[in-house]
Amino acid sequence: MATTSMTGQTTGEAIAQRIDQLASISESATGLTRLFLSAEHRNAAELLLTWMREAGMSARTDAIGNVIGRYEGAKPDQPALLLGSHFDTVRNAGKWDGPLGIITAIACVAELNRQHKRLPFAVEVIGFADEEGVRFASTLLGSRALAGTFDESALAGRDSDGVSLREALTGFGLDPQNIGTAARAPSDYLAYLELHIEQGPVLEAEGVPVGVVTAISGATRLAVTLEGMAGHAGTVPMAMRRDALSGVAECIVAIEKQCRDDPGLFGTVGTIRVEPGASNVIPGRCTFSIDMRSASDEHRQFAVKAAIGSIERIAGRRRLVPRIEIKHEGRTTPCAPWLQAQISAAIARRGYRATALPSGAGHDGMAVADLTDIGMIFVRCRGGVSHHPDEHVTLEDAAAGASVLLDVIEQFQPKTAAS
Amino acid sequence: MATTSMTGQTTGEAIAQRIDQLASISESATGLTRLFLSAEHRNAAELLLTWMREAGMSARTDAIGNVIGRYEGAKPDQPALLLGSHFDTVRNAGKWDGPLGIITAIACVAELNRQHKRLPFAVEVIGFADEEGVRFASTLLGSRALAGTFDESALAGRDSDGVSLREALTGFGLDPQNIGTAARAPSDYLAYLELHIEQGPVLEAEGVPVGVVTAISGATRLAVTLEGMAGHAGTVPMAMRRDALSGVAECIVAIEKQCRDDPGLFGTVGTIRVEPGASNVIPGRCTFSIDMRSASDEHRQFAVKAAIGSIERIAGRRRLVPRIEIKHEGRTTPCAPWLQAQISAAIARRGYRATALPSGAGHDGMAVADLTDIGMIFVRCRGGVSHHPDEHVTLEDAAAGASVLLDVIEQFQPKTAAS
Repeated sequence: MATTSMTGQTTGEAIAQRIDQLASISESATGLTRLFLSAEHRNAAELLLTWMREAGMSARTDAIGNVIGRYEGAKPDQPALLLGSHFDTVRNAGKWDGPLGIITAIACVAELNRQHKRLPFAVEVIGFADEEGVRFASTLLGSRALAGTFDESALAGRDSDGVSLREALTGFGLDPQNIGTAARAPSDYLAYLELHIEQGPVLEAEGVPVGVVTAISGATRLAVTLEGMAGHAGTVPMAMRRDALSGVAECIVAIEKQCRDDPGLFGTVGTIRVEPGASNVIPGRCTFSIDMRSASDEHRQFAVKAAIGSIERIAGRRRLVPRIEIKHEGRTTPCAPWLQAQISAAIARRGYRATALPSGAGHDGMAVADLTDIGMIFVRCRGGVSHHPDEHVTLEDAAAGASVLLDVIEQFQPKTAAS
Repeated sequence: MATTSMTGQTTGEAIAQRIDQLASISESATGLTRLFLSAEHRNAAELLLTWMREAGMSARTDAIGNVIGRYEGAKPDQPALLLGSHFDTVRNAGKWDGPLGIITAIACVAELNRQHKRLPFAVEVIGFADEEGVRFASTLLGSRALAGTFDESALAGRDSDGVSLREALTGFGLDPQNIGTAARAPSDYLAYLELHIEQGPVLEAEGVPVGVVTAISGATRLAVTLEGMAGHAGTVPMAMRRDALSGVAECIVAIEKQCRDDPGLFGTVGTIRVEPGASNVIPGRCTFSIDMRSASDEHRQFAVKAAIGSIERIAGRRRLVPRIEIKHEGRTTPCAPWLQAQISAAIARRGYRATALPSGAGHDGMAVADLTDIGMIFVRCRGGVSHHPDEHVTLEDAAAGASVLLDVIEQFQPKTAAS
């Protein structure tokens, strides 16, 4: 089958125009904030439904508020290749994170439709309603409902105004009893492909517009406290101190070195709090967070153990008492190797060097993986900046992403026993 | 002249009883808080005046609210040996910090008076009204007034209720115009001797009840900010990060090592703040304080320069931008060698090993040194704990301090050209 061309200025401009149009649907006049089950959710969904129908799809909203369009294959009722991303945002968001994947998928279907091309399988495009989880502090509600893993206990969760998810669904015109009907069967799908901005600096550093994702990295988050002894900054000799912050500083340096020396490991200390917290008082207690990620669960778990060992050794040598809690343990979601192979081949066919990289950020694929195999295409974003109004993708890179996605779709081969 | 004995259980108990009596004058029912120009200031001053008069002194309050008692020498109107400490406290204070020096001095004069003993010089006992500086965020107001170095601009300072120092003085029945009359002439005094708890763990570690202070250490306080680049904890590879907190951690470890390797140097990082401060975000900015002290100004200033050099090197290597501000520079106040010698001799006569140590904490002597030579006697406190309800001195150590102070007074030799 011949590959349809979607590169070039026109495609990039068309995508960027829709990105701007969707970004204008925000709860605030300046800055982009679009939360789950809000008026903006409804307006954005309407716009996506319109674009899906213009692209030749039948389109509907499901029981959790996801938007789903379907482009039938050469024969009706075939299993579908599922494409998409999410259209909710963080507060004061960038406009590309999520929408790029939906808009690009719609553009690809529109191109097939323009050519009256039908494939041996159906194509569905989904806009997930809640990936960021800002409103109810519970992520992936849209994709979990699709995968049939929605946890009913989430219905009792409340937003910052005290509105429960159950109430918000009802207010939106949805029936909380019906969420189960959003669940799809594995036999409905051949695979899930998501195109998304990288949200990191790797592709930019590599000088390529797109990359193939190997896995969505699992993460372990720890809360660590070292307990020492507060004292007067002017009267306790250095050798007699049990300074909690100095101990933590040594831990932070050790964790950084461990992660630098171990390729594929990401370790971050993002918060720190010291008590009593006065310039003339030796810190008696210091609490900090550790976020550790890797594309391999075994690797990450081994590294977490090593980091805990380092902390315990440092604390012991300094007569500090450590308290180490694992606050969160999220497993790695691999991207299916057979999908990685097809994405890499498409990238190469479009003339780019296929760069493989893990996703350190979470995505709807983590939930969809319970339903069908997943693959992801990353598009370069400027400076690796995301979750910020400065988030930016060039027209050329948006077009490159679209051309690769369309190529993958047109050349798509369902999984076989051999693949 | 024979030395009067003040050792033993009785003296310790008498001192501790007065410590408790003074500690009962607090603005809060539980915990001890006694601020400058408060009702508790007035009540404590009244009690001190009573004790001074019972000890055979004439006693009065001066223009800033200090309490001063005078015990004439064998001939009237001789220059005086000035003894004392402060009777204001921090919030939720210990009961020994300050009062021990006043109560012990009164006890020594009472003992001289009991024996009808007159010395070749007068003895004055002073209770300074504001050493801690809690109420108006300006320390040593009482001793500065005595030394004639009170800064009139402090009158405009306001407490947390918005009351100015000027208003508080008037409300207390004092005239802000008259503060100058609290100033004394250098010819009024032979020396100033202050007995105070150590507020540190050195005497306890040395196993001695008292020590002689070499100097009140100067201090430099710095505010340091390292500016890096925030980023997603899961997407920015370790080698591409400009993590402000990791840089600060390396600085803290370096400063601690520098101070450990340099005897007499005290360095403390007591506060740290990180931005944005989320467990899944690489810190883009980190601010911390440094408090550096030494009994030698040259030593401290050299060490501060070296620490700044370390910070700049670490920041440069990590592509972080440092901003380093000196927020406070307080010079060292030496204790007069001739007074140190007389205190050491008295300690030895009372049967203790004379241990010399600097004071890392500030004291009224820093201001009084502008008026006359100063000397300090430190008394051991349990665990080095101070500014805390757990602050504690044993009856034996309180008595040991009193016996040493009385010995110094009785054997006191004014400064000569040779001393």
